[in-house]
Amino acid sequence: MSVSAAELSAMARARELGMGVLGTTSPNPAVGAVVLAADGTPVGEGATAPPGGPHAEVRALAQAGERARGGTAVVTLEPCAHTGRTGPCTEALIAAGVARVVVAVPEPTQLAGGGAARLRAAGIEVELGVEQQAAEEGALGAWLTGVREHRPFVVWKVAGTLDGRVAAADGSSRWVTGPEARAAVHRLRATCDAVVVGSGTALADDPQLTVRDAELPPTHPAAARQPLRVVLDRRGRLPGTARVLDDAAPTLVSVAAGPQELLEELFARDVRRVLLEGGPTLAAAFLREGLVDEAVVHLAPKLLGAGAPLVGDLGITGIGDALTLSVVGLTRLGGDVEIRLRPNRHTGDRRVADHRGATGGS
Amino acid sequence: MSVSAAELSAMARARELGMGVLGTTSPNPAVGAVVLAADGTPVGEGATAPPGGPHAEVRALAQAGERARGGTAVVTLEPCAHTGRTGPCTEALIAAGVARVVVAVPEPTQLAGGGAARLRAAGIEVELGVEQQAAEEGALGAWLTGVREHRPFVVWKVAGTLDGRVAAADGSSRWVTGPEARAAVHRLRATCDAVVVGSGTALADDPQLTVRDAELPPTHPAAARQPLRVVLDRRGRLPGTARVLDDAAPTLVSVAAGPQELLEELFARDVRRVLLEGGPTLAAAFLREGLVDEAVVHLAPKLLGAGAPLVGDLGITGIGDALTLSVVGLTRLGGDVEIRLRPNRHTGDRRVADHRGATGGS
Ligand SMILES: NC(=O)c1ccc[n+]([C@@H]2O[C@H](COP(=O)([O-])OP(=O)(O)OC[C@H]3O[C@@H](n4cnc5c(N)ncnc54)[C@H](OP(=O)(O)O)[C@@H]3O)[C@@H](O)[C@H]2O)c1
Ligand SMILES: NC(=O)c1ccc[n+]([C@@H]2O[C@H](COP(=O)([O-])OP(=O)(O)OC[C@H]3O[C@@H](n4cnc5c(N)ncnc54)[C@H](OP(=O)(O)O)[C@@H]3O)[C@@H](O)[C@H]2O)c1
Repeated sequence: MSVSAAELSAMARARELGMGVLGTTSPNPAVGAVVLAADGTPVGEGATAPPGGPHAEVRALAQAGERARGGTAVVTLEPCAHTGRTGPCTEALIAAGVARVVVAVPEPTQLAGGGAARLRAAGIEVELGVEQQAAEEGALGAWLTGVREHRPFVVWKVAGTLDGRVAAADGSSRWVTGPEARAAVHRLRATCDAVVVGSGTALADDPQLTVRDAELPPTHPAAARQPLRVVLDRRGRLPGTARVLDDAAPTLVSVAAGPQELLEELFARDVRRVLLEGGPTLAAAFLREGLVDEAVVHLAPKLLGAGAPLVGDLGITGIGDALTLSVVGLTRLGGDVEIRLRPNRHTGDRRVADHRGATGGS
Repeated sequence: MSVSAAELSAMARARELGMGVLGTTSPNPAVGAVVLAADGTPVGEGATAPPGGPHAEVRALAQAGERARGGTAVVTLEPCAHTGRTGPCTEALIAAGVARVVVAVPEPTQLAGGGAARLRAAGIEVELGVEQQAAEEGALGAWLTGVREHRPFVVWKVAGTLDGRVAAADGSSRWVTGPEARAAVHRLRATCDAVVVGSGTALADDPQLTVRDAELPPTHPAAARQPLRVVLDRRGRLPGTARVLDDAAPTLVSVAAGPQELLEELFARDVRRVLLEGGPTLAAAFLREGLVDEAVVHLAPKLLGAGAPLVGDLGITGIGDALTLSVVGLTRLGGDVEIRLRPNRHTGDRRVADHRGATGGS
C-alpha cells in the first residue's frame, strides 16, 4: 500500500469531518471525505448529511467541481455502489473523473458493498484499509457496532468524585463537576441519537436531558435536533410533571426488561449511538451484560466519604475479577479530569463473538 | 527584582537538586544550590547532605572552586548565618568571593535568619523571593510545614479503582494498580521520613512498607536508608509476626489517640514528611482533621461495584460540603492514572491559621 503524506493528512481531516456530524446521520454512517486535486491540493471536503441528504463524497466532489478531475478522493468508508435514497457514490466519483480513491474502512455490508470493485472496473486506483483502526474507533464506531452486533453503540457517561461517589449522602448531586465538564456533557449528548436514564435518576434529579450548552454553530446539523430522551421505567414511577416529558425533545418511556431489550427497541428506531447517563443501578445493569462500549468519566477532585457509588453491584467479589478498561483519553476539563476508557472485552461472555478484535483500543 | 535567564534556569535546577534529596535531610530542609561563574556558566551544584553533612551551598561552592569568584550562587533557601553542626553558609559564600546570591525562599526561622543581611554587609548583592512559590511547593514544602505548623507534612497515597474502591468485596487488594504505579509508590516512600498505616491495613495486607523498587543509584543518599515504618495500633492488635516488624527498617507501633497526636510524636523524632498509606479509616481521620497536605491518587481503570471505599466517613451529608482539592498533576503510570492534588484549605477550621495562603496551589 502506498499512500502519500497529503493523502494521510486528508484522511485525518476526513475523520475529523466525520466526527463533526456524529449524531446527525443515523442510521447512516458519519463519513468524512476530502478531494485532492491532481497536484495534491485539497479542493473539496464533505461529511454525511442527515438521512435523505447527500453522502460525504458527493458533497466533497460538489465543492471540488472540475478540480477533482485526475485527483484523489480520500474517504473514511468505502463508497457505496447501491442506489439508496441518494444515488450511488461510486457513479459520482467516476463521473467526476477522479484517478484514485483512498479508503479507510471497507464497506462491511453486502447491500452497499462492491464499491471498490466498481471503481476499479472504471479504471480508478483504489487503496483500502488506510488507517482503518483510527476510523473505526472514531466516527464510524457507532455505525459499525450496529452493522456487526445489531445494537447501538453505548457511551456511559458518569460524573463522580475522587472517592467514586455520584451523589452525597443526602442524595444531592448538583453539582459534582464544574461548568466546563457539564458543557462537555452537552457536546457529548449532541453526538448521540439517544440519552438514557433509569427512573431512579429521573425521580432524584428531574433532569431535562436536552442538548443546551453545546455551543454549536447554528448551521451545524446537530443544532437543529435533539437526541431522543429515554427513561427506563418499568414500574411506571415517572410522574407526568417530569421535565423529561416536556416538549423540548422527543421522549421514550420504556418498560424494556433490561439493557439488551432496550437497545433492540432503540436500534429499531434507527438509534446507533446511545449516551447512558443513568445512575449506578442502570450503569451496573449495562456493564454486567457487557453493553458499554466506551466510558467517559468526569472526575471531580472532591471527597464525600459517603453517598451513591459510581456503579452498583457488579457481582464481583475478588480483585482478580474486576472489570478492566483501558484509558484512551485523559484531559483536564476546568478543575475536573476527564478519563475516556474502553472496556477490555476478554471478560464479557457475549463478547466472544465481537468482530472488533483487531481494532479494540488498548 | 532583576534576574537573568541563566539565573532562572539555575534556580529550576536548584529546585530539582533539592527534590533529589527529599527524604534524606530531615530535620533539615532539602535545599538545592547552583553556582554560576562570572560569565553565567554553571560551575558547581549541590544539595543538602544528610544531617551533620554539608549544606547545599557549601557543596556547590566546593565543586566550583576558584570559578565561583565574582560569580553568582543560586539557592532555594536563604543561606543560614548561624553556626549549627556545620559552619554558617554565609561565611562560605563570602570566602568564595561570589558577587551575587539569588534566593527563592527567605529563611523563616529566627535562629538561622539574617543571612541576606550578613551577605549584603559583606558587599554581596542579594535577590530574595525568586520563584518563591515553586520552591515552597517543591522540596521545601515539608520543612516549611514543620517550621510553620510544628508538625510533619502529610502526603496521602491511595490506589483505587475508577469507582473508588481500594479493595474488592472479599477484602483482596493485590493488586489494584499495575507495576509502574507500584514502583512509583516505592519512589514516593523514598522521599518520606515515615510511612504510616493503621492496624486495619497491617492486619489485612501484612505489608512490609519498605522502599524496594525505587531504582535509586547506590550512591544516592536515600539508597542507604529506609523511612520509619509506623503502625497506628491503639488496641494492640498487631501480631508479633507482622512483616512490618521485621528488621528491614525501623518501626514504630504507636498508640497515639489520633492523627494530631501521632504527628506530634513523629515531629519530635525529626520526621518532616509522612506518607500516609493507611486504609479508608485512617485516611478519613487525617482528612477530617485537615491533616492531609497532598494527595497522590493512583487510579486503576477498573470497576469493582463493591468493596472498601477510598475513604471512610467524613461526616459530610450534602454535595456542597464536599472536601474539595485542586489537581496539581495528572499523568499516566503504565495503564493507570496518577492524580496529584492539594486540598483547598478554605474548609478546615484549624487551617484558618495556615500561613501558606499566598502559596497554596489552586
Ligand atoms: N453524577 C452522575 O453522573 C449521575 C448520573 C445519574 C444519576 N446520578 C445519581 O444517581 C442516583 C440515582 O441512582 P439510581 O441507581 O436509582 O438511578 P438509575 O440507575 O438511573 O435508575 C434505576 C432504576 O432504573 C430502573 N430500571 C429499569 N430497567 C432496569 C434494569 N434492567 N436494571 C436496573 N434498573 C432498571 C429501575 O426502576 P424500575 O424497576 O422502576 O424500572 C431502577 O430502580 C441519584 O442520586 C442521582 O443523582 C448521578
Ligand atoms: N489500595 C490502597 O491504597 C490501600 C491502602 C491501604 C489499605 N487498603 C485496604 O484498606 C483495608 C483496610 O482498611 P482500614 O480502614 O481497616 O485500614 P486502616 O485505616 O489502615 O486501619 C484502621 C485502624 O487504624 C486504627 N487507628 C488508630 N488510630 C486511629 C484513629 N485516630 N482513627 C481511626 N483509626 C485509628 C484503628 O484500629 P485501632 O483502634 O485498633 O487502633 C482502625 O481500625 C484493607 O482492605 C486494605 O487492603 C488499601
